[in-house]
Amino acid sequence: MKVAIIGGTGYGAIELIRFLYNHPYAEIEAIISHSQSGQALGAVYPHTVGVVEKPLEELVVQELAERVELVFFATPPAVSKDLAPQFLEHNVKCIDLSGDFRLKSPTDYQEWYGSPAADENYLETAVYGLSEIYEEEVAGANLVANPGCYPTATLLGLLPAVQNGWIEEKSIIIDAKSGVSGAGRGTSLNAHYPEMNENLKAYKLGQHKHIPEIEQELGKMAGHPVQVTFSTHLVPMTRGIMSTIYADFTQPVSTDEMIEAYTAFYREQPFVRIRRNGELPATREVYGSNYCDIGIHADQRTGKLTIISVIDNLVKGASGQAIQNMNLLKGWDVATGLNYLPIYP
Amino acid sequence: MKVAIIGGTGYGAIELIRFLYNHPYAEIEAIISHSQSGQALGAVYPHTVGVVEKPLEELVVQELAERVELVFFATPPAVSKDLAPQFLEHNVKCIDLSGDFRLKSPTDYQEWYGSPAADENYLETAVYGLSEIYEEEVAGANLVANPGCYPTATLLGLLPAVQNGWIEEKSIIIDAKSGVSGAGRGTSLNAHYPEMNENLKAYKLGQHKHIPEIEQELGKMAGHPVQVTFSTHLVPMTRGIMSTIYADFTQPVSTDEMIEAYTAFYREQPFVRIRRNGELPATREVYGSNYCDIGIHADQRTGKLTIISVIDNLVKGASGQAIQNMNLLKGWDVATGLNYLPIYP
Amino acid sequence: MKVAIIGGTGYGAIELIRFLYNHPYAEIEAIISHSQSGQALGAVYPHTVGVVEKPLEELVVQELAERVELVFFATPPAVSKDLAPQFLEHNVKCIDLSGDFRLKSPTDYQEWYGSPAADENYLETAVYGLSEIYEEEVAGANLVANPGCYPTATLLGLLPAVQNGWIEEKSIIIDAKSGVSGAGRGTSLNAHYPEMNENLKAYKLGQHKHIPEIEQELGKMAGHPVQVTFSTHLVPMTRGIMSTIYADFTQPVSTDEMIEAYTAFYREQPFVRIRRNGELPATREVYGSNYCDIGIHADQRTGKLTIISVIDNLVKGASGQAIQNMNLLKGWDVATGLNYLPIYP
Amino acid sequence: MKVAIIGGTGYGAIELIRFLYNHPYAEIEAIISHSQSGQALGAVYPHTVGVVEKPLEELVVQELAERVELVFFATPPAVSKDLAPQFLEHNVKCIDLSGDFRLKSPTDYQEWYGSPAADENYLETAVYGLSEIYEEEVAGANLVANPGCYPTATLLGLLPAVQNGWIEEKSIIIDAKSGVSGAGRGTSLNAHYPEMNENLKAYKLGQHKHIPEIEQELGKMAGHPVQVTFSTHLVPMTRGIMSTIYADFTQPVSTDEMIEAYTAFYREQPFVRIRRNGELPATREVYGSNYCDIGIHADQRTGKLTIISVIDNLVKGASGQAIQNMNLLKGWDVATGLNYLPIYP
Repeated sequence: MKVAIIGGTGYGAIELIRFLYNHPYAEIEAIISHSQSGQALGAVYPHTVGVVEKPLEELVVQELAERVELVFFATPPAVSKDLAPQFLEHNVKCIDLSGDFRLKSPTDYQEWYGSPAADENYLETAVYGLSEIYEEEVAGANLVANPGCYPTATLLGLLPAVQNGWIEEKSIIIDAKSGVSGAGRGTSLNAHYPEMNENLKAYKLGQHKHIPEIEQELGKMAGHPVQVTFSTHLVPMTRGIMSTIYADFTQPVSTDEMIEAYTAFYREQPFVRIRRNGELPATREVYGSNYCDIGIHADQRTGKLTIISVIDNLVKGASGQAIQNMNLLKGWDVATGLNYLPIYP
Repeated sequence: MKVAIIGGTGYGAIELIRFLYNHPYAEIEAIISHSQSGQALGAVYPHTVGVVEKPLEELVVQELAERVELVFFATPPAVSKDLAPQFLEHNVKCIDLSGDFRLKSPTDYQEWYGSPAADENYLETAVYGLSEIYEEEVAGANLVANPGCYPTATLLGLLPAVQNGWIEEKSIIIDAKSGVSGAGRGTSLNAHYPEMNENLKAYKLGQHKHIPEIEQELGKMAGHPVQVTFSTHLVPMTRGIMSTIYADFTQPVSTDEMIEAYTAFYREQPFVRIRRNGELPATREVYGSNYCDIGIHADQRTGKLTIISVIDNLVKGASGQAIQNMNLLKGWDVATGLNYLPIYP
Repeated sequence: MKVAIIGGTGYGAIELIRFLYNHPYAEIEAIISHSQSGQALGAVYPHTVGVVEKPLEELVVQELAERVELVFFATPPAVSKDLAPQFLEHNVKCIDLSGDFRLKSPTDYQEWYGSPAADENYLETAVYGLSEIYEEEVAGANLVANPGCYPTATLLGLLPAVQNGWIEEKSIIIDAKSGVSGAGRGTSLNAHYPEMNENLKAYKLGQHKHIPEIEQELGKMAGHPVQVTFSTHLVPMTRGIMSTIYADFTQPVSTDEMIEAYTAFYREQPFVRIRRNGELPATREVYGSNYCDIGIHADQRTGKLTIISVIDNLVKGASGQAIQNMNLLKGWDVATGLNYLPIYP
Repeated sequence: MKVAIIGGTGYGAIELIRFLYNHPYAEIEAIISHSQSGQALGAVYPHTVGVVEKPLEELVVQELAERVELVFFATPPAVSKDLAPQFLEHNVKCIDLSGDFRLKSPTDYQEWYGSPAADENYLETAVYGLSEIYEEEVAGANLVANPGCYPTATLLGLLPAVQNGWIEEKSIIIDAKSGVSGAGRGTSLNAHYPEMNENLKAYKLGQHKHIPEIEQELGKMAGHPVQVTFSTHLVPMTRGIMSTIYADFTQPVSTDEMIEAYTAFYREQPFVRIRRNGELPATREVYGSNYCDIGIHADQRTGKLTIISVIDNLVKGASGQAIQNMNLLKGWDVATGLNYLPIYP
């Protein structure tokens, strides 16, 4: 199957390229970059020279729609909401790594993203591509809204507990920490090496646009609206997200019971790994891979639950999950082209 | 005043040496190291060569007690509990950077430290040296229990809110993050560079020995026992602690009101800085210095409070605060020898 | 083909496991670890749990020789020199990642490694596995001495120039820089995170045991003994080696001529990439991959040559090249199981 | 003495502010920033809030000249060459941290900096402020050209050997490595955290504008023109420069003889420390301080000399040396306000 990547010079795109290069059934037909079209990919990313030799192309929808079956959008906010419908009209499937189709409520989008939402018809039909949860829906989708990095780590860590009715939803606190690549390739003082190295920064307390996305999905699982406290921190590393999740129990549950339930919940899922009692995952242990590792601690002394969920923000939190969704969508084995060990150390 | 440092090859000692070297009234008379006695300090820490030329000495209590007025203990757990009393009997003041005299309850010490507590008489008379809170008590003390690094950041961030009765104490969750120097100079796989670089690890959920210390002090301020949820994480940086603190409000309080109250609470304190509304501190902004910077976010949407408190774990979280306590104890200006800008970047 | 890895808990082994896991023709039959036998691999490396589920076994040569066709030694110095011959006697091929069979001269081994060399017969028949140079020899070998990390980067950068007779061999200076993983998984103060982070250290000037290995191979290409100045530095990163190589020209050669000659020299080699005039490689551009990227600058002002050669020390500098040698040895395409993009960023 | 800093938002300025804040005789009267004038310093550098409370001012030469005795220029290239003369005419002393007055030859400046040089009269009278070498000249100067960071580390490492006539000057090769703060606070893809973390980059081989500065000073010491090979590398750390210097001997000299001669050369200099035979300095050992640490290895096997010279690029390589020059210029003890231990770890 031939695919195109739109937004070819960001980190989302370069990770898509890495996985697609070794994917047995999909092939990169075109890499589109508005800002750098005309250049070779290797001029922008020297590590690809001699391996993936492709020009960066300008976008011409009609023409591209004839060359490919599926398009990945690795674009900034408010780009795909207009472009994806054009490809869908040409019967080209779309997997959108941006946030444009994740929120079902246009009001929420307007409020948190600060610009008008996509057409409501598309918001309705878009499938939220949290692969482990919406396997079947993605299989039949034309438009997949690939989840955000923080929501992926957080929801995979929380959903089994919410489904079991074990936690007081209004008590949920998510202390999220991310490597700096999450901010993209655009330079800023925040991501300037001398400012960020040997530094730990909190940012956007209670204001991150991933909040409504998390709440939407938790609410769906719970059957009623859920509100969470969500804080984000920048950690001096390139890749990795850790969500440390806190909640009150509705009833006494032990760590072992939880681990058992989580293990059962994800039994069929190759990319979620539940740690044994007493073991906690570290971000390095999923580096470069599509795994989400989850550790659980039900504190008997305080009666509170702590869940540690880690992913590689650029893989399971973005491009890896997009490939996973492509696999689902095409009916291929879900792990096709993703079946690698994390890189350690 | 002549002072001695016991435990001369750890990071606590080397930071004491850095500050004492420029302190106008105190002078290092002796550096004691059991493991490396006989060597020059410069053989263990080449950066001191030509600046602080001192031998590392074996400990002889009686003899040392005649040479110095005050002793700093920068020793592992369960060392000072036996040694400090011997110095006190010789009328030598003691500032203990270890945890041996922090907990008033011997049972708690036994439970969390896994070995018998110090003599109860000394536990009672030891002053918990959180300098901003126990200024007067430290002034008259013979034995100061210098607070732990996590408790320092956490308590300075929480105490004004607890004092005001603004927060539900049982809702307190502390998500703490530390640089790797907190684990000391002893090598371990956890602190091995290739394992810790580009990595973020959670450890000891609900089991850190700083928990009873935090609960003791919160309980004292609250007037009744307080239990907290406390998680610790290792961040790939050398220095810095951030405590991200969450709590439910007992009543509606705005960010501005809180900032005003915190600013008033610390008005006389040179080393606590409250950030303005909308600004959050980063660990780099206190690097190498004795400052504790605090940012406050009272979320109107969720009705929850988030406090960000940062320190340099080796300075305000250990040696800097020890110098501050020495200043208080001697009646010197509290900032003597500590009055430096953080090193940035 | 079934293979075994001996020395299963080091970084060399874990990278072998990563590549073998996806290799289409080779399969890990056994992982041998003397120090941790009896444990599961996942207990030592949690990132492998659920992916590579293998016990760590104790070594029994005879029994293992019946199970596998080929053995990788990822062992400390002075282990394989005794063990490899035992496997060879059982007609099991050996690829040795340690230095035990790299030096043809037993005297040199004794002098630089400080212990007796392997049996001279094996030293003679062992093929030095610098894959790009000894392609044919490796193809027929039973025992491959996989090159050291520094020699790999350095020799690939130097050999074409030496072959062309363009440089004064006695003028060669190699300023080599390595990430910390090169020192292995054993903890030490040098690799202790707080000591190595935000630090740059020179070590072992003129004394590194990779020196005789480099000189042996340069001498072989030159046809007469060559002596080099070789310095090593630890850089605060996990992976990556850069050799910055300096030499005087024997005759005027331009950067373009050199690039042309280097490109021709490596024309058939998929893993050596020569940068264009004015472009210099960075270690990140080969991260996690088997590539060696080379940049060349012939300075017209000073008449000196500078060559920048970068590899991932754990891949092309160790396990990746070992896989490459296995491919050569078995007659498989040289890139089998190695054909991945570097991970960027 | 009242001083002003021009270029108040760069890293050079913020380090000047750090040292001046504790300097006993100098006081910051004004901080000038063209780009951010009107703001408080604390808005640009939050770590200064509550410690150094100063507005960033617009420059008015005449008015400022009446308020201060001395001006530090921490400005980009081609700013001070026009401004410094205006202050000098008002009898205000100038210490210029930029490169505008370092090169005596206007032709060299034009060639390497790509813009016209300062007025030749000022180039002639400007004193090159390598404090250890030009102590007396600086004492009487009105205009001090503070050396570049690379030249400081390199020249302090090379000059004693050149003075003794021990090395073939045409053989000198300098492999220099710098932390990322050397590139300043302006953002760029090169200094973007995800690109620079876990990366090592060579740049500007043979083209760095510090080359003519090094050659000028070596030539002066040698008594005839000297040409060097000089390469620069970016290392993933914030601070620190290491120059690894190679040269051929003109005669046999042992490491011990060299160490003795270097120690004698710098006997009166508090900020240069010569390591003992077998010991090599690391950048961390001078972190945050004004020290230059030098290690020497005369290789008996190859007959070549290797010198390792390390500084903190922002201190001895910029602001610390500027303070040192101010001290010399005013006749104060050279270590005034600089007499601190490096920060370790």
